Amino acid sequence: MADSPDCDLKSLSPLQLFERVTEQGEKVRALKAGKAPKDEIDAAVRMLLSLKLSYKTTTGQDYQAGLPPKDLVLINNGTTKEEDEDFVDPWNVQTSNAKGVDYDKLIVRFGSSKIDTDLINRIERTIGQKPHRFLRRGIFFSHRDMDQILDAYENKKSFYLYTGRGPSSEAMHVGHLIPFIFTKWLQEVFDVPLVIQLTDDEKYLWKDLTTEKAYEYARENAKDIIACGFDINKTFIFSDLDYLGTSTGFYKNIVKVQKHVTFNQVKGIFGFTDSDCIGKISFPAIQAAPSFSSSFPQIFNGKENIQCLIPCAIDQDPYFRMTRDVAPRIGQPKPALLHSVFFPALQGAQTKMSASDPNSSIFLTDTPKQIKTKINKHAFSGGRDTIEEHRKYGGNCDVDVSFMYLTFFLEDDDRLEQLKQAYTSGELLTGELKKVLIETLQPLIAAHQERRKQVTDEMVKQFMTPRKLAFEF
Amino acid sequence: MADSPDCDLKSLSPLQLFERVTEQGEKVRALKAGKAPKDEIDAAVRMLLSLKLSYKTTTGQDYQAGLPPKDLVLINNGTTKEEDEDFVDPWNVQTSNAKGVDYDKLIVRFGSSKIDTDLINRIERTIGQKPHRFLRRGIFFSHRDMDQILDAYENKKSFYLYTGRGPSSEAMHVGHLIPFIFTKWLQEVFDVPLVIQLTDDEKYLWKDLTTEKAYEYARENAKDIIACGFDINKTFIFSDLDYLGTSTGFYKNIVKVQKHVTFNQVKGIFGFTDSDCIGKISFPAIQAAPSFSSSFPQIFNGKENIQCLIPCAIDQDPYFRMTRDVAPRIGQPKPALLHSVFFPALQGAQTKMSASDPNSSIFLTDTPKQIKTKINKHAFSGGRDTIEEHRKYGGNCDVDVSFMYLTFFLEDDDRLEQLKQAYTSGELLTGELKKVLIETLQPLIAAHQERRKQVTDEMVKQFMTPRKLAFEF
Repeated sequence: MADSPDCDLKSLSPLQLFERVTEQGEKVRALKAGKAPKDEIDAAVRMLLSLKLSYKTTTGQDYQAGLPPKDLVLINNGTTKEEDEDFVDPWNVQTSNAKGVDYDKLIVRFGSSKIDTDLINRIERTIGQKPHRFLRRGIFFSHRDMDQILDAYENKKSFYLYTGRGPSSEAMHVGHLIPFIFTKWLQEVFDVPLVIQLTDDEKYLWKDLTTEKAYEYARENAKDIIACGFDINKTFIFSDLDYLGTSTGFYKNIVKVQKHVTFNQVKGIFGFTDSDCIGKISFPAIQAAPSFSSSFPQIFNGKENIQCLIPCAIDQDPYFRMTRDVAPRIGQPKPALLHSVFFPALQGAQTKMSASDPNSSIFLTDTPKQIKTKINKHAFSGGRDTIEEHRKYGGNCDVDVSFMYLTFFLEDDDRLEQLKQAYTSGELLTGELKKVLIETLQPLIAAHQERRKQVTDEMVKQFMTPRKLAFEF
Repeated sequence: MADSPDCDLKSLSPLQLFERVTEQGEKVRALKAGKAPKDEIDAAVRMLLSLKLSYKTTTGQDYQAGLPPKDLVLINNGTTKEEDEDFVDPWNVQTSNAKGVDYDKLIVRFGSSKIDTDLINRIERTIGQKPHRFLRRGIFFSHRDMDQILDAYENKKSFYLYTGRGPSSEAMHVGHLIPFIFTKWLQEVFDVPLVIQLTDDEKYLWKDLTTEKAYEYARENAKDIIACGFDINKTFIFSDLDYLGTSTGFYKNIVKVQKHVTFNQVKGIFGFTDSDCIGKISFPAIQAAPSFSSSFPQIFNGKENIQCLIPCAIDQDPYFRMTRDVAPRIGQPKPALLHSVFFPALQGAQTKMSASDPNSSIFLTDTPKQIKTKINKHAFSGGRDTIEEHRKYGGNCDVDVSFMYLTFFLEDDDRLEQLKQAYTSGELLTGELKKVLIETLQPLIAAHQERRKQVTDEMVKQFMTPRKLAFEF
């Protein structure tokens, strides 16, 4: 059936799909030019959109006329159905499922471990307080070696935290806060030092940016990160472009990683091709190196082999799978990891929130009015088409973006459960649910903006100056 | 004639041939798609096959669409005999010709310019003194843009020198001194600053070494380099492993080069494969970056875009061809180059002297007795088998290693010419020629050893400390 492209698209290569999209685009143009009947044009447009979605699902890239696909890596979830394939790499996240990526399958695919009730309970016992809502609600859902971190910690052996951000623009959105909110909590409850990498070199390599601009973004982003409330005595924030030239240990670890990873390996892990620049090809070592405390001689007072724990979104895992593979071969401990889910786009959990698509994002700079408008206008609803149907059949929290956001930001478990039940039963309407989200996000973002205003250039300089952090190892 | 591609293909590089085959393939496809007349298609196909054959003859590889040839590498001497091919890349030099590599063909192959009498005379006029014997005798035989350096210099625009060494062992041999002897002379006659890169990271990546050992070799080699007599106020010697972590400008230039060079390019230039580690693949950028003065903000007091002149052996040219290709795209001046021939192994000019083969080398640590024994035992002779034959037919200076070494180290032009005539006529015997070489090298190496003894750790530290050099720009 011409209108249902999926049936025969499973077997197509990205390039073949690209050609199908191109053909269909030409067909639509021809129909329009020929003033064909409206329903014929509509059908062709639907087909085009459907093909474009298939293209994006398969390649992880938006279709761009004249630009054939890069040969990226498919993460096959083990099913044969095209629509069940989730695409996850450090640059793209795409699924056709409105509930979002299938994270259980991702755990199997990536070979990590689920954060189960046992582990959450153990964390609670170790820290003597209630685990963060991100743990309680499966937002941090996967880990590597977190049990070892706890074993060591219970035996008075400490660790350090490492997380990061690619500063591709000045504008950070609420999704960017997730790892930082959680990392701040970890820093507090475990009382450990933290290093935060701003990969301005990566952004220079991947984007049309100067090194100066990338560094400027890094400094601007540092302000938003500092506004999350990190302890200045325990936190070092660094730009690669800056820090690489001021550390006696960082480059040595980079070159050690680079010696133990082949092009074949990064090709397999990251989907690089022969046409990629050598900067991209060698970059994974630069994201790997902060996993080793010897990259920070000033920060840890020359102390080496301190265990590292990395909280990050699951799409960053490929870097650290590689790092863990290399670590023992260069005499370093493997970093442990805590993986979060992606923060969904306003339009739905098929992809993650992206700063490059303003309509998909709520920015940390948005006004209360902008927040309200964006949520009301764009947040994908799991509600029914009419009030009557909604009252009768109820809404679907699994695909409702407003509800998803509330699981990230509403602290009160009971309230969240009430909302879920009321929405599912049809008692609560989409507009009412959106109102709760708006009222949750507005003060949260306003408070962030207030804290960011307090962040002075002097503070940024302090956070970004290599210096001994406070720690007890 | 269209059917006979060979007539104009002799002069094409493997890459150009590759492009010709690709073009012709496209032409054939276009003709077929356009349903051209059969004889036209047939002619194009014949041409294609013929081009593919030329490609295979030249490169020794079958043409593969999308896979450009490795450029390394084969230097075809213009004959059809396989054994007359010279192999030159940064890691290997090999020829079947006892006279050594055919340097005139290398100039054509690499696209550099010959250092001819006009240029040598111009250098003499500019500096107001006799050019170094390495120039007079064609030991530095090729250049890129040396005329521009002289143009600028004559207009009071200065430049800086950049050379280097891969510190693969503590033992340096006399051949390693060639670029340093010449660079010292350039520094003196032009009165310019100099940076010397010790690529300990490269040696770590390529050899079975720890970073500590590679750095130790770098420091040891620095002593031999310092013993050549460089001006401490105008010379900065640096180890990559060390300097990268202390310079705010070096990494920025490295990442800029890395953004503008693809894996395809380094594959073509250096013959890297998918099994090579990403450290090797990205290393060329690290050898490229010192060509830009902004890599040395402390050294040049923040002054950027100072013209760079690189004296080096011709096998290092691939790095700088790449650098010159990238330079304008990152807003930097192209470095100029002066290329030397290789220093022949004792056993003959088929390959260069290599520290990893002790019998092929005279080391800077050798005693007078060792020097004498090695030359007498191993130095390949161009003399005849018997004294009678030698007296009758004379010796061959073109293949005699002792004579070659004398062209490097005997300063007196008249004496050298006398030796040549006497040896060629048969008047001078091999043993006598070797004696002259031994008596030339022994005091030279003894003096080097004496100067090296004077090099203290404190001096090494001073040379290797980033600091403003004395210069007038």
